[in-house]
This record gives sequence, structure tokens and C-alpha cells, in this order.
Amino acid sequence: MQKRDKTHRRLLRHGLELVSSGGFAGVTIGELANRAELSKSGVFVHFGSSEALHLELLRAAAELARREVVEPAMQAPPGLARLRRLFDRWLGWAQRSGLPGGCPFVAATAEFDDVEGAVRDYLVETLEGLIGVFEQTIGEAVDKKELSPDVDAKALAWQLFGLYTSHHTMQRLMRDSEADAVALQGFETLVQAARPLQA
Amino acid sequence: MQKRDKTHRRLLRHGLELVSSGGFAGVTIGELANRAELSKSGVFVHFGSSEALHLELLRAAAELARREVVEPAMQAPPGLARLRRLFDRWLGWAQRSGLPGGCPFVAATAEFDDVEGAVRDYLVETLEGLIGVFEQTIGEAVDKKELSPDVDAKALAWQLFGLYTSHHTMQRLMRDSEADAVALQGFETLVQAARPLQA
Repeated sequence: MQKRDKTHRRLLRHGLELVSSGGFAGVTIGELANRAELSKSGVFVHFGSSEALHLELLRAAAELARREVVEPAMQAPPGLARLRRLFDRWLGWAQRSGLPGGCPFVAATAEFDDVEGAVRDYLVETLEGLIGVFEQTIGEAVDKKELSPDVDAKALAWQLFGLYTSHHTMQRLMRDSEADAVALQGFETLVQAARPLQA
Repeated sequence: MQKRDKTHRRLLRHGLELVSSGGFAGVTIGELANRAELSKSGVFVHFGSSEALHLELLRAAAELARREVVEPAMQAPPGLARLRRLFDRWLGWAQRSGLPGGCPFVAATAEFDDVEGAVRDYLVETLEGLIGVFEQTIGEAVDKKELSPDVDAKALAWQLFGLYTSHHTMQRLMRDSEADAVALQGFETLVQAARPLQA
């Protein structure tokens, strides 16, 4: 690997750690230079602007999440087993990826929802992709008659998203040891309600 | 009202608008001075530090939420009717309170969950209070036999919290017109699953 590429990856890693602990607002070219013990101009050549930096950080976070959540879930058979695996892997994925604080997407969603631009656009696209993976998996569970054909896949996917964010708040802000149990119980309740009547 | 009190309230209003659109990170004494067209020292005498400012903003947000969500819900009879009213009033409360962007508590939760200090402590206490109001209302619904005695009030309260945050993301980030329908359907699913067997 070229030295420039190694430095770039090191900067992204430092940046993700900053995002995870303090959100995107604190991750400027200058702050990243401090953290990586490089000059500001040395970091600037890698990203060019805070917006470009934030965008690259989100792309790097999406890649981490793909490896930690989506890829392992794809090892489970399609349908309910995969849906359960997806949800299990989602809870706490950021910590398992070695990030010191919370989920970069939870931070980004709160920070960029009212800020027009490329970061917001990428965030919308990425969340659509994630919800799409859940919707498809729910659709496979319907095909296998594990869930009712009447299930609203999009609604269920977003309700599961809610369980993820409430788990994040319980675990990180409230430091509540029941976070996992509450989220998993919520998953079972929502899935049971979506079961076919005969099952 | 004294002039100083009027200025203080005007500063809090400006501050809440800034928080609602861009989170707490952008709300410094200097930024607030710009927005209110006052000198930095003129704003400083009102708050003294960014931390004190953030704390006062959260207190002001809690007061708005109390008036927009909790007080009207208390007009409904205790139990399931009140639980439904609480949840209905919660969805979109920040916009109905005249804030231009998202919910200050969603922003604060993402920003302060890994930042030790008085703001984080206040946030934990306020969320505990909110979850407590839901738990109590669920308990009243159990007493009235509208919900099963087996219901886990704390778990249900946090699952409803999840529906609130997913509604917030669908509405503000995704600009999805189905946000209300998905949240209300999720509420009904969770409540139905908590009904007594005989009902």
C-alpha cells in the first residue's frame, strides 16, 4: 500500500473515532490534524473540505456496517432466520467494529437532517438501502410463509429501525443493562404480530 | 417583565431554533450573539458558558414539551386513552411548538451520550422522567384491565420511544409522508400484543 493510502486510512479511522464519541460537528480538518499529529495542510490534501471529509467518513462507516451487520446476516437462510440475524448483528455493531462511542449514523441523522447538501443526500440513500435490505428479507419471509402476506414490509422495517435507535439510547445514554432484552423483546412482539394466522 | 428577563427569553428562543436546525454543537455564546444581534459579552452575562447555555436550552425544551405533550395528555382519562394521547401528542411536538427543525432531545441524545457533564446528567434525568410518565400510564391501563398484568411497562415505554425516534427520522430526514401511519400502526401492534387475553 502506498504511504498516501496508509495515511488516508489512518485519518479515516481517527475521524470515525471522533465522530463516534462527539458527532460530526467536531470533526474538522483542523481537529483531525491535531488528533493524527499532522499539519492542517497535510490533512487538507486528503479531503479538501469538511463536507468531503464528512462524506468519506460516512462511506467508511457504511463499509464497516456492511461487514459487521449485512455480510454475516447473508450467511443465514433467507427469510425470518436472516431477519433475526440482521437485527441481532445491528444491535451494538459500532462497538463491535471498535468504535469508542455511538453509531455514526445515529449521529449523522440527528446532525444533518436539516442541512441540505451531499452529506444529507448520501445519508438518505444509505438509510434507504438499509431499509431496503430489511424489506427484502421480510419479503422472503413472506414467500416462505413465515410471515403473513398482509405484512407491511416497509412499516415493519422502520419499526425495527426504531428498536435499534431506542436500544442505542438505552445503552449509550442511559447505560441500561436491559437494552438488549428490551430490543429483542420488541423484535419478537413485532414479528409475532406479523405471523400468518395459521402458523 | 424586566428588560433583562425579556432578553433572556428571546435568547433562549433563538437558541432553541438554532438547536432544532443544527444541533447543540453550533450553539455557542458567539453564534447566539450573532443571531440575536447582541454583543458576545451581552450574551455571556446571561449564561456564562456554553455548558450553562446548553443546559438552559434543554430546560426550555423540556418546558415546551411538557406544555405540548404531557399537559394535554393529562386531560385524557388515565390508562389506554391517555397512553394513546401521549403518543399522538409526542409525534411532531417540536414543529407544533414552532421550532423550525427537529426535536432538541433527539439532537441532544446523539450529541451528549458520550460527553460527561451536567448536560448529559440532565438529559438522562429528563428521559427517565418521560419514560416514567409512560410507565405510569401503562400501569394505569393495567389497573383498568385494558392491558395485561404481564406487560413489561418499562420495555413497552422504550419500544414506544423507538417509534418516536423512527418517526422523527422518517419525517425529518427521509421526508416520508407515511411517517405518521407507520408510527401509529407500530403503536397499535405493540399495544394489541399487551392486551389481556380475554379482551
